[in-house]
Amino acid sequence: MKNLITLFFLLLLSCLKANSQDNKAPGIGFSGGVPATTNIRGAQYPLILPNHHVMFRLKAPDAQKVQIELGKKYDLVKGDDGFWSITTDSIGEGFHYYSLLIDGIATADPASESFYGMGRMASGIEIPFAKGDYYAEKDVPHGDIRIKRYYSTVTKSWRQVYIYTPPGYDANISEKYPVLYILHGGGEDERGWATQGKTNMIMDNLIAERRARPMLVVMPDANLGAAAFGEDGLKTFETEMKQCIIPFIEKNYRIKNSGEYRALAGLSMGGLNTLYTGIYNTNSFSYLGVFSSGWISPMQNNIANTQYEYMKQNTSKINSNLKLFWISEGGKEDIAYKNGQIMLAKLDELNIHHIYYEYPGGHTWPVWRNNLYNFAPLLFK
Amino acid sequence: MKNLITLFFLLLLSCLKANSQDNKAPGIGFSGGVPATTNIRGAQYPLILPNHHVMFRLKAPDAQKVQIELGKKYDLVKGDDGFWSITTDSIGEGFHYYSLLIDGIATADPASESFYGMGRMASGIEIPFAKGDYYAEKDVPHGDIRIKRYYSTVTKSWRQVYIYTPPGYDANISEKYPVLYILHGGGEDERGWATQGKTNMIMDNLIAERRARPMLVVMPDANLGAAAFGEDGLKTFETEMKQCIIPFIEKNYRIKNSGEYRALAGLSMGGLNTLYTGIYNTNSFSYLGVFSSGWISPMQNNIANTQYEYMKQNTSKINSNLKLFWISEGGKEDIAYKNGQIMLAKLDELNIHHIYYEYPGGHTWPVWRNNLYNFAPLLFK
Repeated sequence: MKNLITLFFLLLLSCLKANSQDNKAPGIGFSGGVPATTNIRGAQYPLILPNHHVMFRLKAPDAQKVQIELGKKYDLVKGDDGFWSITTDSIGEGFHYYSLLIDGIATADPASESFYGMGRMASGIEIPFAKGDYYAEKDVPHGDIRIKRYYSTVTKSWRQVYIYTPPGYDANISEKYPVLYILHGGGEDERGWATQGKTNMIMDNLIAERRARPMLVVMPDANLGAAAFGEDGLKTFETEMKQCIIPFIEKNYRIKNSGEYRALAGLSMGGLNTLYTGIYNTNSFSYLGVFSSGWISPMQNNIANTQYEYMKQNTSKINSNLKLFWISEGGKEDIAYKNGQIMLAKLDELNIHHIYYEYPGGHTWPVWRNNLYNFAPLLFK
Repeated sequence: MKNLITLFFLLLLSCLKANSQDNKAPGIGFSGGVPATTNIRGAQYPLILPNHHVMFRLKAPDAQKVQIELGKKYDLVKGDDGFWSITTDSIGEGFHYYSLLIDGIATADPASESFYGMGRMASGIEIPFAKGDYYAEKDVPHGDIRIKRYYSTVTKSWRQVYIYTPPGYDANISEKYPVLYILHGGGEDERGWATQGKTNMIMDNLIAERRARPMLVVMPDANLGAAAFGEDGLKTFETEMKQCIIPFIEKNYRIKNSGEYRALAGLSMGGLNTLYTGIYNTNSFSYLGVFSSGWISPMQNNIANTQYEYMKQNTSKINSNLKLFWISEGGKEDIAYKNGQIMLAKLDELNIHHIYYEYPGGHTWPVWRNNLYNFAPLLFK
């Protein structure tokens, strides 16, 4: 029995080792490669090669077909040693979701951290970026990410919210702070901005440089049963914000609780929620950020036309309440680009003041990190 | 182009729907089933059946072999519709890791939340438990889970720690709190106690019933390069605790910073760290909890013998400093049971005061949740 127990621990040790050894770099031909920072500890693959090609390699002697989906599908090639491998095209800056497909089943790569995206736990890979200094971890004062649970009287269930509190929040007990509420996209949740988005790093760095005011960033879960593409879903989110989330935050944190010190932003589906909740409540929010979004034509034409009519009736109220209405797209390659342009033209026609910003990269997290980095300094000035 | 964009959003919607539909309960024969609370939103499977059998079902028309490893390996059976399914044996209370194996590759089930365990992102399933009320989410005051980053001068890198602050911590700005430092097991990390362990629920409920004193619970990452099975690893963790973690916590939180108000506990590998750091620093810790652990014989005999010799030379100091030395095992089925018994006999022989507690369930999270529930009320009284 004693030997059995020893054996177990030795097995555990060798198992932990084997996991990383199975996954070791071959060491020849790829000397410039580094494991992705999103790999689990000890995993060598995915390996970032020079020029941001990515090498995948995993042991699967009995698999029939192994693929990686990272922007596009790559078929891995099986070697005589039972390892499958592939080197991808050059991959763009920052964070990208990817999937490991075994016999066509999309799953998460066991060698990588998982992230809630695409409606499931997916793999993610962080590609180094020369201009990514703004989200690097530096020796500056750091805020906290807090995970809070609250009971929603709208959904009649406990829900979760992530909250960034800025450096000094705990110590400066007499100071009250403005708040940015920021929303994830479809198939994501409250973890998106905190992990994929690196909100804490971006804010820590901006605050350290005095480019952004210290503020709380509240990251709610905007999944409320119905997706935010229909009016029911949009309305439910508005109610959840007004009846549950904002009162909960203002009760539990030292907040400047007037619209003047409240911003709302969101990406993709979260941008639609921002348009709906924001435009109809400009007394409650003075700053709106709509990233990679815009009413979806023709599916949401009714919702859009009702809102444009509201804008027409309330132009001066909206323009006077909103200190900033910031709209961005990830370039022409962003799947929301066209809908965004339709909306922008309409806003011009209606004389609703806004600012448009474009950063290429499509409908992806590198674009949204950049959006937060450019949006946050404009708030509460 | 406009149609293309609409198409994308419709695809996204239908894709999100399809994910859950692929995974829908057949509706006949399993009317008593409920989706596991650990499933991702919308996923019907794994489905908990009466008596805690678990039904798995997933679409994989092109797979050759699909298995679930949950306590043991189950071969799923392929139906004519391309769905594979299986119903497991009755599974015990609480949280269990599991794996989805496709053609022999252990991966995480895309229908489930993932948890860092077994040295990788693994699936986990929460089995309902009639006596699990102590970790249920209730309408009581809730504390926060905070994610903090700190720079370790030991590892020369940024590291992460999870911290539970009790209800009222933010409001009671003149109050200082005692701290429990609690450690995960091998192949896990700082997320273990916060997610798998439900530390926040257990503490919220205990504090609400006034059975435990309000305290901070600090959950460090005990992975420091070398595993804690050799003296190097044990020593490195001790240094990290003394030089980095404790000073960081005491600088940033309102802590009663003397040994009298400091507890240290850990499970499995974390129990070994607790034995090493705790016994050699009884000036710094007044309460020790060693869950499902004990020096591994014969691998750690040298480390153990050195410690027993230290105990012999310092019996009265250890007995007078430690208000509680609490050792637990998950019954005879716990793989650490035998090593624990060897240690307990030695402690008796050396007259080192301790308390032994046993809760059946083996080397698993249900046991460790129960351990925290029984250990926390004994602290700082």
